[in-house]
Amino acid sequence: MNKPRVGIVMGSDSDLPAMEEAAKILKKMKIEYKISICSAHRSPQKAREYAQGAVGKGLEVIIAGAGGAAHLAGVIAAETAIPVIGVPLNTSSLNGLDALLSTVQMPGGVPVAAMAIGKTGARNAALFAAEILGIKYPEIRKRIEKHKKELARGVEEKDRELARKLKISPRKA
Amino acid sequence: MNKPRVGIVMGSDSDLPAMEEAAKILKKMKIEYKISICSAHRSPQKAREYAQGAVGKGLEVIIAGAGGAAHLAGVIAAETAIPVIGVPLNTSSLNGLDALLSTVQMPGGVPVAAMAIGKTGARNAALFAAEILGIKYPEIRKRIEKHKKELARGVEEKDRELARKLKISPRKA
Amino acid sequence: MNKPRVGIVMGSDSDLPAMEEAAKILKKMKIEYKISICSAHRSPQKAREYAQGAVGKGLEVIIAGAGGAAHLAGVIAAETAIPVIGVPLNTSSLNGLDALLSTVQMPGGVPVAAMAIGKTGARNAALFAAEILGIKYPEIRKRIEKHKKELARGVEEKDRELARKLKISPRKA
Amino acid sequence: MNKPRVGIVMGSDSDLPAMEEAAKILKKMKIEYKISICSAHRSPQKAREYAQGAVGKGLEVIIAGAGGAAHLAGVIAAETAIPVIGVPLNTSSLNGLDALLSTVQMPGGVPVAAMAIGKTGARNAALFAAEILGIKYPEIRKRIEKHKKELARGVEEKDRELARKLKISPRKA
Amino acid sequence: MNKPRVGIVMGSDSDLPAMEEAAKILKKMKIEYKISICSAHRSPQKAREYAQGAVGKGLEVIIAGAGGAAHLAGVIAAETAIPVIGVPLNTSSLNGLDALLSTVQMPGGVPVAAMAIGKTGARNAALFAAEILGIKYPEIRKRIEKHKKELARGVEEKDRELARKLKISPRKA
Amino acid sequence: MNKPRVGIVMGSDSDLPAMEEAAKILKKMKIEYKISICSAHRSPQKAREYAQGAVGKGLEVIIAGAGGAAHLAGVIAAETAIPVIGVPLNTSSLNGLDALLSTVQMPGGVPVAAMAIGKTGARNAALFAAEILGIKYPEIRKRIEKHKKELARGVEEKDRELARKLKISPRKA
Amino acid sequence: MNKPRVGIVMGSDSDLPAMEEAAKILKKMKIEYKISICSAHRSPQKAREYAQGAVGKGLEVIIAGAGGAAHLAGVIAAETAIPVIGVPLNTSSLNGLDALLSTVQMPGGVPVAAMAIGKTGARNAALFAAEILGIKYPEIRKRIEKHKKELARGVEEKDRELARKLKISPRKA
Amino acid sequence: MNKPRVGIVMGSDSDLPAMEEAAKILKKMKIEYKISICSAHRSPQKAREYAQGAVGKGLEVIIAGAGGAAHLAGVIAAETAIPVIGVPLNTSSLNGLDALLSTVQMPGGVPVAAMAIGKTGARNAALFAAEILGIKYPEIRKRIEKHKKELARGVEEKDRELARKLKISPRKA
Repeated sequence: MNKPRVGIVMGSDSDLPAMEEAAKILKKMKIEYKISICSAHRSPQKAREYAQGAVGKGLEVIIAGAGGAAHLAGVIAAETAIPVIGVPLNTSSLNGLDALLSTVQMPGGVPVAAMAIGKTGARNAALFAAEILGIKYPEIRKRIEKHKKELARGVEEKDRELARKLKISPRKA
Repeated sequence: MNKPRVGIVMGSDSDLPAMEEAAKILKKMKIEYKISICSAHRSPQKAREYAQGAVGKGLEVIIAGAGGAAHLAGVIAAETAIPVIGVPLNTSSLNGLDALLSTVQMPGGVPVAAMAIGKTGARNAALFAAEILGIKYPEIRKRIEKHKKELARGVEEKDRELARKLKISPRKA
Repeated sequence: MNKPRVGIVMGSDSDLPAMEEAAKILKKMKIEYKISICSAHRSPQKAREYAQGAVGKGLEVIIAGAGGAAHLAGVIAAETAIPVIGVPLNTSSLNGLDALLSTVQMPGGVPVAAMAIGKTGARNAALFAAEILGIKYPEIRKRIEKHKKELARGVEEKDRELARKLKISPRKA
Repeated sequence: MNKPRVGIVMGSDSDLPAMEEAAKILKKMKIEYKISICSAHRSPQKAREYAQGAVGKGLEVIIAGAGGAAHLAGVIAAETAIPVIGVPLNTSSLNGLDALLSTVQMPGGVPVAAMAIGKTGARNAALFAAEILGIKYPEIRKRIEKHKKELARGVEEKDRELARKLKISPRKA
Repeated sequence: MNKPRVGIVMGSDSDLPAMEEAAKILKKMKIEYKISICSAHRSPQKAREYAQGAVGKGLEVIIAGAGGAAHLAGVIAAETAIPVIGVPLNTSSLNGLDALLSTVQMPGGVPVAAMAIGKTGARNAALFAAEILGIKYPEIRKRIEKHKKELARGVEEKDRELARKLKISPRKA
Repeated sequence: MNKPRVGIVMGSDSDLPAMEEAAKILKKMKIEYKISICSAHRSPQKAREYAQGAVGKGLEVIIAGAGGAAHLAGVIAAETAIPVIGVPLNTSSLNGLDALLSTVQMPGGVPVAAMAIGKTGARNAALFAAEILGIKYPEIRKRIEKHKKELARGVEEKDRELARKLKISPRKA
Repeated sequence: MNKPRVGIVMGSDSDLPAMEEAAKILKKMKIEYKISICSAHRSPQKAREYAQGAVGKGLEVIIAGAGGAAHLAGVIAAETAIPVIGVPLNTSSLNGLDALLSTVQMPGGVPVAAMAIGKTGARNAALFAAEILGIKYPEIRKRIEKHKKELARGVEEKDRELARKLKISPRKA
Repeated sequence: MNKPRVGIVMGSDSDLPAMEEAAKILKKMKIEYKISICSAHRSPQKAREYAQGAVGKGLEVIIAGAGGAAHLAGVIAAETAIPVIGVPLNTSSLNGLDALLSTVQMPGGVPVAAMAIGKTGARNAALFAAEILGIKYPEIRKRIEKHKKELARGVEEKDRELARKLKISPRKA
């Protein structure tokens, strides 16, 4: 299992700090990925070839991050039959609202799965890619289930820590 | 292939006109589905049991539609490891912006894939579910590819029709 | 009067700086409280048990703070018959508008009392909890009345101070 | 138990269709109420006297509905120590967003509990008033608990009805 | 002067009622045009070929109208060096705000000239196309100048008409 | 007192239904006015001459109503030293938010007094004009004071009417 | 001319940095003013007395600045017949949009003249107060006219400065 | 080719850092330009003369940048028949949304071509001006075509760089 299954693509190298969050989660989930830069507007041919070649290269899910009039996810979704997850980035003065609406309000026929704006969305895009792969690869499903348990345990720990910090016994209420 | 693979769930029966659009697409894609009503707020236990029982019942993807403070998709995503697609519905005076933000701005760790607001989103949720299943079932992948070609052909036809209507030969420009 | 009457709950320990403001006001109002961390999405079972156990533990009001697609208050309100006050937190790029709409636009049947976004809302949540308790406990009602007089006096003092600073007699206009 | 415990107040008689929803719920909950018209801007003295006299008249909760620059709830909250619930109404071209922000963004020290925009909010305001009274009157608490069970049952019934309508057995998934 | 100089393109035939307004103005300005249907998402190849072939076919300006996540103008602008004017259409529940942001917030390097939302924008797109052509074709410049005078005259006439209607002499104030 | 003191100006005759509301109030306040049509964009010279000639013609206040990118009030305020009141009209798909921001967000140095969106704003513009004139003409001040009392009385009457309708004595609460 | 003619009032001393801008302009315009702190919510009686006493103390215009659910201007306008100018302040996470809507969307009958958000609005409030006073006091009118000429001259100077800086002769274009 | 063909105009010298971006691009495109300061509100006569004199001075396109209630582009478009490109600047607390709507929502008859908010928009305004000039001057068309190729190459390089940085061969996916 060495070939990338998930393609992470972004419109500009300035989007890397946000989109790296997706890479970290995929690494943790032991899912091979490949990060690329590819702009829907500045390099349309590259974007098209990326999307058209995705299945051939073994990609099963694509995560696309872009800001402003964020068309990248939509442009890729137009040219491939595999699931495309869009991460709206907060790169303009409008706090990512422009990127969110440009990503989520896709016309009937060509879906993009929109995540939250920014790093949180990038992280969740990777988890959602894992959930998608989980329907086919039982070992990935198991890792997600484990991850969900860790999340719950993490909250428990934070809660106990807080109780300690506040010198209030966690049994009190 | 008789057991439902996709669960369509909505907060209220008044959401049916929108969510039926998802059902129609799944039917067209020959994907078995089951529609349920289940409110995150009014019937939390039912929502929980729905989510926790999904994998056991053979569901592979869940589509959840809700309006206003649309928590249904998030509440279900919290309790299952299969992909959850959220459809924000336009049921309050805020044009679905409330439902969109409540659906898409999920915290890190628990992704929901947000679609466009309303019927368009319901249709795309079904197509996205098909794309997800397509990574596992080659026959579904083929149907999506066919669907994408039909979309392009449909545009071609509309364009020719318009040209006829405008009495302008399509070869003109 | 030693058992906590108000439960303060938040989705993450990063919400503590805002939610501590609620604790400070409750302390000032001599109302026992208990702070917990509990995520609607990452630890749904804990959130449910928290809500279902609230009455049994003697809680009379719950204050829930969360950001983004802020579902915590709604999820708790779904499982308890005591008043739930929601504090939308400003933790995403959308300035808390997402948290506000996710908190306030609850469907008919399951109310959440929304406060202002952020620390101001946390403070007011505590005061509102006190006002609720004030309908049952006359001594708390008295403290609120005193607090309201202090607020008015505080404004008077600030006004006089400003007049001094501006070297204008407060009697002038 | 004949004296009104809940005061419903609105800025104009054109707000009655929305605010009557609150009255219906209170009636169902067997809670005495009194509806009044009283504008923060057009009849400020009446608003003030209403708020200042509320406790004396035995009111324990006030529900105030207003649209546009909705100041009524805030103006009343400034003059009373009992809980004030604000219902933002959709009476201007801005879909109630103006009323929502004018109601919810109260400054520190003077809380108003904001509900959803419009009729849904009016209904929930009555339920929230019942929840508040429920901390003092066990019979009201019981009615809320019953109401919550009815909500869940209602969802169950709608779900079964839908299953029948779709000619799909509810046991299927 | 028979070959179309302006291409009007829209994502769907349901956009025709709005985009016909552009055609009417171009006709009035005696500028040859060609209307086409071509979706960035459903027929990406057609959109690309349209854009790449525009110069070769003699087009000098392109007007692209689309709603929702309106990518059409941007996708075309990515593939041609002639000016692209975008008309955001009001086809989703968000009043065209989504289409506006998707059209106007283009990344550096690939401009789209955004017009007002809807029919007004379609009309102005045609006028703006005329202004662009006016820098090359003096007869078109003259028609715009005439059009501007007509606009001013139209206002004068409306003002006089109103004065008559109100039985107030226009010389009064 | 026959010469108009207030100029009502609007961008288009389609704005008349809203702006007539201002005229009605002025008539009631016995303030002479003159209504004109004058577009900042389509008839800039007329707008300029209107503003520059206002003082000479005896106007003391100008009320300007416009929708969309509502520049009329600002353009007039730039050319006169008398107070200009702007009424944002709801003529585009954005519910008047565009007109509101275009009217109210004036740069430092050139104020416009913005009123509420639409008819309500037109009515209040007339009242505000009366308040301005009231600082100079005691008889107008008196009419405003009377008007304010009528408003309060009107609320009282509506309240009594409602009480009758609800068969609840107004003395009850 | 020693008695204050303009009252500047704000909800909190933290609003002073913005509202001082109004004071500076009034000083420049040689208009006597008085600054006060007075909260609609925390000191309602003081706000009421301020408004009711304004005319008696010789005030002719009131400028009220507040943030969040900015009710101060409206509360004052409800109790006085002199013009009230509202300055929405940017004190919450919503960038002043809440304060703007709470200030501008006043109900029919009780106008408030809204200015731009923040310091710019405070400056313009003072200028607008001067324009109002200018209809009564010719010397103030003259100062405004002079101020407008200075504004124009200021722009000319900045333009020449820029030309020098860019080493481009101002006669070039 | 020495006379400026593009006029860059802005409301204030504080807009220079954003609008200089337009100048840089024009320089790169070897298009002569002239930068001016000229406010629609503070120096209306200068703005008018600028617009009316533009054609006479040989200008073929005007780029106007302004923030807040950004009227500059509209005011200039009202007085000239050459294309006017508007750049909404982010100078108020509303993130440029006010400037965007004030620029783009022009009424029918007087178009302004709106660009993205801020520096990105300024850059694109210059490129769009070049595209407009490109329909008349083949050498400018060629430079745009070259620029588009450079953009694509730039993306390619960034992509390879990233691949190197990530120590992943660009041939991998």
